Amino acid sequence: MTNFNIEQAAQQARLASLQIAKLSTDSKNQLLTLMADTIAANKSKILDANGKDIAAGRSKGLSEAMLDRLLLTNERIDGIRAAIIDIVNLADPVGNKSAVTKRPNGIEVSKMRIPLGVVAMIYEARPNVTAEAAALCIKSGNAVILRGGSEALHSNLAIAELLHQSLQQCQLSADIATVIPDPSRQVISEMLTLNQYIDLVIPRGGEGLIRFVSDNSRIPVIQHFKGVCHLYIDKYADLDKAVNILINGKTQRPSACNAIETVLVHKDIAAEFLPVANIALKPFAVSVHACADSIDYFQQASLASDADYAAEYLAQEVAVKQVDSFAAAIAHIERYSSDHTEVIVSQDYSRTNAFVSAVNSSVVMVNASSRFSDGGELGLGSEIGISTSKLHAYGPMGLQALTTQKFVVLGDGQVRP
Amino acid sequence: MTNFNIEQAAQQARLASLQIAKLSTDSKNQLLTLMADTIAANKSKILDANGKDIAAGRSKGLSEAMLDRLLLTNERIDGIRAAIIDIVNLADPVGNKSAVTKRPNGIEVSKMRIPLGVVAMIYEARPNVTAEAAALCIKSGNAVILRGGSEALHSNLAIAELLHQSLQQCQLSADIATVIPDPSRQVISEMLTLNQYIDLVIPRGGEGLIRFVSDNSRIPVIQHFKGVCHLYIDKYADLDKAVNILINGKTQRPSACNAIETVLVHKDIAAEFLPVANIALKPFAVSVHACADSIDYFQQASLASDADYAAEYLAQEVAVKQVDSFAAAIAHIERYSSDHTEVIVSQDYSRTNAFVSAVNSSVVMVNASSRFSDGGELGLGSEIGISTSKLHAYGPMGLQALTTQKFVVLGDGQVRP
Repeated sequence: MTNFNIEQAAQQARLASLQIAKLSTDSKNQLLTLMADTIAANKSKILDANGKDIAAGRSKGLSEAMLDRLLLTNERIDGIRAAIIDIVNLADPVGNKSAVTKRPNGIEVSKMRIPLGVVAMIYEARPNVTAEAAALCIKSGNAVILRGGSEALHSNLAIAELLHQSLQQCQLSADIATVIPDPSRQVISEMLTLNQYIDLVIPRGGEGLIRFVSDNSRIPVIQHFKGVCHLYIDKYADLDKAVNILINGKTQRPSACNAIETVLVHKDIAAEFLPVANIALKPFAVSVHACADSIDYFQQASLASDADYAAEYLAQEVAVKQVDSFAAAIAHIERYSSDHTEVIVSQDYSRTNAFVSAVNSSVVMVNASSRFSDGGELGLGSEIGISTSKLHAYGPMGLQALTTQKFVVLGDGQVRP
Repeated sequence: MTNFNIEQAAQQARLASLQIAKLSTDSKNQLLTLMADTIAANKSKILDANGKDIAAGRSKGLSEAMLDRLLLTNERIDGIRAAIIDIVNLADPVGNKSAVTKRPNGIEVSKMRIPLGVVAMIYEARPNVTAEAAALCIKSGNAVILRGGSEALHSNLAIAELLHQSLQQCQLSADIATVIPDPSRQVISEMLTLNQYIDLVIPRGGEGLIRFVSDNSRIPVIQHFKGVCHLYIDKYADLDKAVNILINGKTQRPSACNAIETVLVHKDIAAEFLPVANIALKPFAVSVHACADSIDYFQQASLASDADYAAEYLAQEVAVKQVDSFAAAIAHIERYSSDHTEVIVSQDYSRTNAFVSAVNSSVVMVNASSRFSDGGELGLGSEIGISTSKLHAYGPMGLQALTTQKFVVLGDGQVRP
């Protein structure tokens, strides 16, 4: 299909958003449970469609990594069901009221959480995102427009059909969840002008996709370009914690955006820490790019360049730099940070407080692994994305980031003098 | 000046934002007090500059209303001083932490308020905005770039000089508050591409300015197009409250965006309410555009068209429509609302609750005048603007809307299993 009418779809999604916004938590949970069960009961339909995508992907020569992300199995479909049930079990933010202020004239002012309206997701290979993003948007009372990667189109449309079946069974508009069947980039460009119907765009994928969306959108965009996460080993660090946090942060899942990319080491602890780090990193075959002061502590390391400090390796590779002071560590982070996650390891009360105050990345940690920078680990439940731009949301985004707050004023006939 | 280097200015503002972000509340208050006093002590400098703007405005043939907005007097400069001192007295949101959650593994997760970074304001005639917007941004720890109207350029530059004098006396960078001396629209276009340095743009002025900024910005924009505020007189309204709230909302300051533009009247109360409304509106010479069912209640009224229901009159003019039911009132608001402010007058518990739930405008009121839809009246203190788009902020924006929240994680060596 190439003549998909995105303007009409967005307009219908806007109308449907009024319907989903008014549903009670119970009704939304019933709908989501039905969606989860319908998906689990129709595995063969989804697997058939996915088989077509996999076959087309193979003949197009997609990489094995790409094919693996595209692949659905019985277990993975059970995973989708479980993810939706997790969302059923999350608290509904809609309708929550903040503390009430009573003004001198007696009016009571509070703020109440409400859905955003229509959320558009643009994403790449993994077809489970179709069901999980739809579930997060529905739970938070939003209509959703989903534009997955062309390589997953059959899988996404099969999932969409099951979502629509559930919506219809609940006598709700199918326009609450729209999957765009048009694989062209043109449809994205057109969608990004429809700010009268769509409230938020969340692109998930490579930096190229996110830049394209940011540069062409009239709709607010959640941006997440990259994660250059820093680990600062302070002069007063506990060495065991430092090494564990380094190994976990760098090696557990180096392809994740919350992996450590640069380690800053206070010069007064370098002679103690770096030899231990060298031994600990060895089993993981981590390539080290070290500054001139640090390089001799490593058996195999190359000299770090400025590009290394800016790099998001997403691999078993790390930059190491000695710093002369706490202030120098902060200055390095201010220069190279991607505003994702930064960690200090220190036992000193004043320094950990100062680090938390001075560093304004979206997640700032003390004596904990950067790998906790994730919606689930931080207690938000499932995450729809992560924001490294400061507007609206900053850091991992759960259900609450899919809502806003209106003011509610309760009076008894007051007028303004 | 036409060759102002906005890119360099924005880059310098970004650097200066790191300095202001780290200042204590006491230091920010000292700076603001000094700014207030310096402005009050240099009235003649400001009045001289303002005299040039007024003279130029007269010879350009600006309207008297425009000249009045441009004019500064001794009293108005005292008003600027007082507005800055009000901001000194507001609580500083920066550093406030939300409730701490302890995760099963023992890490403690909270959120801490931090400044946005660099805020750009684009505004029109009134030169007091230069000082007051700068003060709000400084109190919330942000650097600010100010682009006022060309007709107020001399006044704005005189105020900027006094702001810079105060910054220098506190040994702070003058780049914390930048006033753009270039009156061209070109400089705005260029500024709107600098999303690597500027975090937020707030345009204040006519719909044309706001559309221009929204359509051309890569930086998030706070939008506030117009205020078509509705007053719904329910079947169970208290008639006295209804009339008082109508008269206050419509006639007190009809040029304000929180004035009432359309009154919806439940058919069961129309025969009681409309004759009283007719009498009450008469002394204010309000032009009434009434639906066919209502028109006979008014001595002078024209028949309302669809355009009347969409109109922001900003004048002593109002649309009146009878509705058959509560649901019809909600449907009318959903169709014509500008997402600004809507009011219900009713004594019925279920209906007021239902109205608050169903209407998702930025301010929803029960039995109170729409004229309270204002940062000061709602208890936010001074207001930097108002947002009728749902992202980041929705409704009147005080200091808190100039901040965001970072996640803070405190651990004791935890790593992810």
